Parts: sequence; C-alpha cells; structure tokens
Amino acid sequence: MLHELHTRRRIEFADTDMAGIVHFARFFVFMETAEHEFLRALGRPVHFDHEGFEVGWPRVAASCEYKSPARLGDELDIHLRVKRKGTRAMTYSVRFSCEGRLVARGEISSIFCALPWKPADDGSVPRRPRPLPIPPFLADKIEEAPARADTVPASAG
Amino acid sequence: MLHELHTRRRIEFADTDMAGIVHFARFFVFMETAEHEFLRALGRPVHFDHEGFEVGWPRVAASCEYKSPARLGDELDIHLRVKRKGTRAMTYSVRFSCEGRLVARGEISSIFCALPWKPADDGSVPRRPRPLPIPPFLADKIEEAPARADTVPASAG
Amino acid sequence: MLHELHTRRRIEFADTDMAGIVHFARFFVFMETAEHEFLRALGRPVHFDHEGFEVGWPRVAASCEYKSPARLGDELDIHLRVKRKGTRAMTYSVRFSCEGRLVARGEISSIFCALPWKPADDGSVPRRPRPLPIPPFLADKIEEAPARADTVPASAG
Amino acid sequence: MLHELHTRRRIEFADTDMAGIVHFARFFVFMETAEHEFLRALGRPVHFDHEGFEVGWPRVAASCEYKSPARLGDELDIHLRVKRKGTRAMTYSVRFSCEGRLVARGEISSIFCALPWKPADDGSVPRRPRPLPIPPFLADKIEEAPARADTVPASAG
Repeated sequence: MLHELHTRRRIEFADTDMAGIVHFARFFVFMETAEHEFLRALGRPVHFDHEGFEVGWPRVAASCEYKSPARLGDELDIHLRVKRKGTRAMTYSVRFSCEGRLVARGEISSIFCALPWKPADDGSVPRRPRPLPIPPFLADKIEEAPARADTVPASAG
Repeated sequence: MLHELHTRRRIEFADTDMAGIVHFARFFVFMETAEHEFLRALGRPVHFDHEGFEVGWPRVAASCEYKSPARLGDELDIHLRVKRKGTRAMTYSVRFSCEGRLVARGEISSIFCALPWKPADDGSVPRRPRPLPIPPFLADKIEEAPARADTVPASAG
Repeated sequence: MLHELHTRRRIEFADTDMAGIVHFARFFVFMETAEHEFLRALGRPVHFDHEGFEVGWPRVAASCEYKSPARLGDELDIHLRVKRKGTRAMTYSVRFSCEGRLVARGEISSIFCALPWKPADDGSVPRRPRPLPIPPFLADKIEEAPARADTVPASAG
Repeated sequence: MLHELHTRRRIEFADTDMAGIVHFARFFVFMETAEHEFLRALGRPVHFDHEGFEVGWPRVAASCEYKSPARLGDELDIHLRVKRKGTRAMTYSVRFSCEGRLVARGEISSIFCALPWKPADDGSVPRRPRPLPIPPFLADKIEEAPARADTVPASAG
C-alpha cells in the first residue's frame, strides 16, 4: 500500500519569470509530474490500455498556495500524499520545500476515465471522458495518507 | 470604477498535451494574462516604479476547476471579475467558456508589494516582497463585482 | 495564392524569464502559431481528416537568431513568409520586430504527413508519420515569397 | 578541461502536445538546461556577480533538427558538446537519443555579457547586454570537443 511519494526537482531557467522566481503556473506541472511518478510506482503510467479503452486521469481541480519564492538552481523537495481516495477520483496534496523552508502547498484531483480520443474495439468513439471505477490492480495498492502533523499550524501561518 | 474584464483567447498547439486538450496548467497562465490586462485597464502594468521601488503583484494563491475540455482552435471567452478587494490583496474569479459551454472556473490572488529584486533609491535591497497598501490611483478605480447570478447552480453542479 | 502572413502578439508575463526578457524558446511557439494561422488562412487547421487518415505537419527543423530583447507588454510584429514550397515539405521564415526594431529571425520546416496516432479506416495503425504529397486544395494556394529586400544586410549585420 | 556533458531527462506529460509527442519547442529548454548544467560543472551558475556586474549568457542563436519522436515516459540521453569556443561566445551541439535511437540534434549559442537589468556599483544601468571576454576562471576550463565521428553520416541521413 502506497500513500505518498518523495521526489526532488531542480529549478531550471525556463521555470523562472521576470520576477526572478519560479512562475506560479510551473508548480502545477511539478505536482502533475509527482502524481505521474506515484502512478508509475503503482505499476501503470498515466495513460494505458485497459479493457479495450485508453484510460487516464483527467484533471478536475487544482490549487496552490505560495509561501516563499523558489529560484534558479534551488532543489525542491516535493512530498505528494494521498489526501482522498474515492472509487473513481483521487485527490493528492503536495508540499514543496527547499532546505526546510516551505515554498508552496497545493492539491490536484483527477478522475479515472475512459478517454474519448481513441476508438473502442467496436469502433465507437466516446465524445467525452467517461468515469470508471479505479481498477483493483491500482486501487488495492493505494491508501489515504495519515493526517499531516503540520497541517494546522501551516494553515494558520 | 472597474470590476470586471472580458477578453478572448484562441487555443494554440503548444497549449495542448497528449490528451488532445489544453493542458490544465495553461489555464493559470490565461488567468494571469487576464489579470494583467485588467491592471493595464486601470492604468498600470503589473510591474512599475512607485515611490522609489519596483512594485508588483506576487501571487499568493491560485485554483481552478475543470468542467469540459478546450481544444486547438477553440476561442475561449474569459470573464475576469473582482471577487475581493482588500487594502493590500486582490482576489479575482475567472470563468472560461467556449460558445456558451463552461470550460473552467478559477481564482487567483495576489498582493501588492515592493519587490526585492531591485535596489531602492538609497541602495538598500529588500530580501523579500514587502506588502504595501494598494495606492489610491489604483484602488480608487477598483470595486468588487456583484455576486454572479450563476454562482450557486454552478457550484452545485 | 498566399505567400505570407502578418500577425501581432503581445508579450505575456509567462513568456518572460528571470533575465527580464522573453525566453528564447517562446519564439518557437510564436513561429508555430503564425504557421498555423497561415494554414487556417488556406482553409485547413494543422490537423485534419484527409482520405481516411488524420494528417498534419510534423516539425523537421527549427532555428532562430536573437537580435534584441522583447519585454513584457511589447507587441511583436510577426511576419511569416513561405521560403520553400516542396511537394511534401514547407519552410517558413519568420521575422519578429517591435516598433521597427528587429527582435529575432527564424525558420521552421514541416512535412505533410499521415499521422500515426489514429487508426486508418481499415483499422491499421501506422507506427510513424508517413510523408504525403501536399494535397492540391492546399498546394495550389501556396507560393514561395519573393526574396526579402533586407535579407542581405540583415544577414550581414 | 571540459568539452562535454552527459545527462538524462525523463519526458513529462506537460512536455507533450496533442500529436502525442514532445512539443518541438521543449527541446530548446532541454538544451538550455544541459548548457547550464555544464556551466555549473565549471563552477558558476548561468547568472552570477562578476566585477561589479551581474553577468550571464544571453542567447544569440538556437536550432534543432527532429529525427524521431519522443513520448511520455521516454528517458532521453542528452549529450552536450562544445562546438566552438570564442573569446566571448560559445556554441554547443546537443544530441538527444532514446535507447540508442537518434531523436533530435541541435545547437545553441550564447555570449558572455554584463546584463543590463542590474545597476553597476556606480549606479549606472546599462541599457543592453554588453559582451565581455569570458573570464579566465571559466575559459581556462573549457575546450572544444573533438569532431564527432557520426557527424557526417548523420547529416547525410
């Protein structure tokens, strides 16, 4: 059972903006990459073939709070945790820090779906992602993370 | 007094990802660009010189919910509204639609600050953004938007 | 017959990097968007269905020389021209300027192809893009641009 | 003396576009990140303080040829080599491959400069980057790479 992933990432020049710090939208890419690394650790990439469909995890929501800037060359510690595990949807919380300093804290949610852009075996093409139950070979390996001790003071900060 | 901005944006190839739709992180860029267009409509760019400092609007929070996909060539209607106006901080809500279909709905918050990456006239260099009151020549032109009629059913959807 | 396209683009915050100017990789996105606008002016988007295949214009080469910086809020004049028209491939030259000042000059080349990521009507899936002759309903509308008067001094600059 | 750098990079979802492969502009970011890793191996980041100025390596040219697609999850082998070492300018060639398959091949050039966005110690602010000789503590560690054995057949391919 997995409920978290630790990874690291070095800030690149193209991550920065004219304010000299990491552009706020990049943190969403960083969260997504951590989510996909978590999925690979469960044994599947973010898109794969399943029962005649291409399946994946379309995004339904994302949010981030920015606490202190990250700069070129900083190496971020990224800590992803399973906040909610549903039958179809997952919510992850992600904490970014640099040498112990809190940089940002975010959440991303996604739903397991049959994707509409590849025909099924019978040739029919669904027009929108269609939510599916997370299959047991993934769901059985995922558990929600225990409450984070620092959640309360950090929220109050 | 301004409380909203309407703008449009055509989806580009580089906005898309391998799922064939706009990558979720791009909506944060789209929101920011609308925010900056709103600031220019007030008479100032997002960074400018003010009382011996470079000032700007560092991001403190951002969020987005994704309701339906946007694709290459779609032209998004972007409706930014002032949700909260504080003495130092602003929160904007942004609604994305395409031909009447709701695509996404987000919020971004920023704080008016003296920026740390440019020396003051006395040569001192602040180390972190320092929040300042929004100056009257901007604040006097901004008002909060009236509640959006569709807020309740959309939130419930 | 079309051999050029003029368009404009305002620099956004997310286009910039910590050097305070537009990140060099963004010019490639700007070139591509101009190329796609040119294709739409011919009557087709960059991807479309053609004789049972999805067809498109995979990139084979791209280059850019940077002459002066572009900054937030600058509005770039973008002038795309058909440099070479082949039976399968196109090369465009693109010139970026701002208020008459040369900013950058680049080229992009692409090949008309059946794309491998969508099954043909017979269900077979090609594994790589397969070059095709540019169909007459596009080719007949494209011509090479006359030599640009400023090419020689600009190259010598 | 250094004349090359080997690094690796895993393709992320946000690197891809709706064609299902890495967007061509991302290779320029990948080249830049390898260039900066090379500079760090020489002992300096891409921007640093030097004789009272902030100095850096503004981009003057970049190009790339695309040989085969890279996809989500691919791990690229990135091989950067010093192609030309001048008194002020550097040109690097970069080869991208994946499990022995050539993916792309590019070049980037940059010039060592005093940067215009930070005042000098005397308070004067230069308006444009000003080229400077590469200082000995960097130049003495850099040498041009020997000609690559595969250059001829690859160019002919």
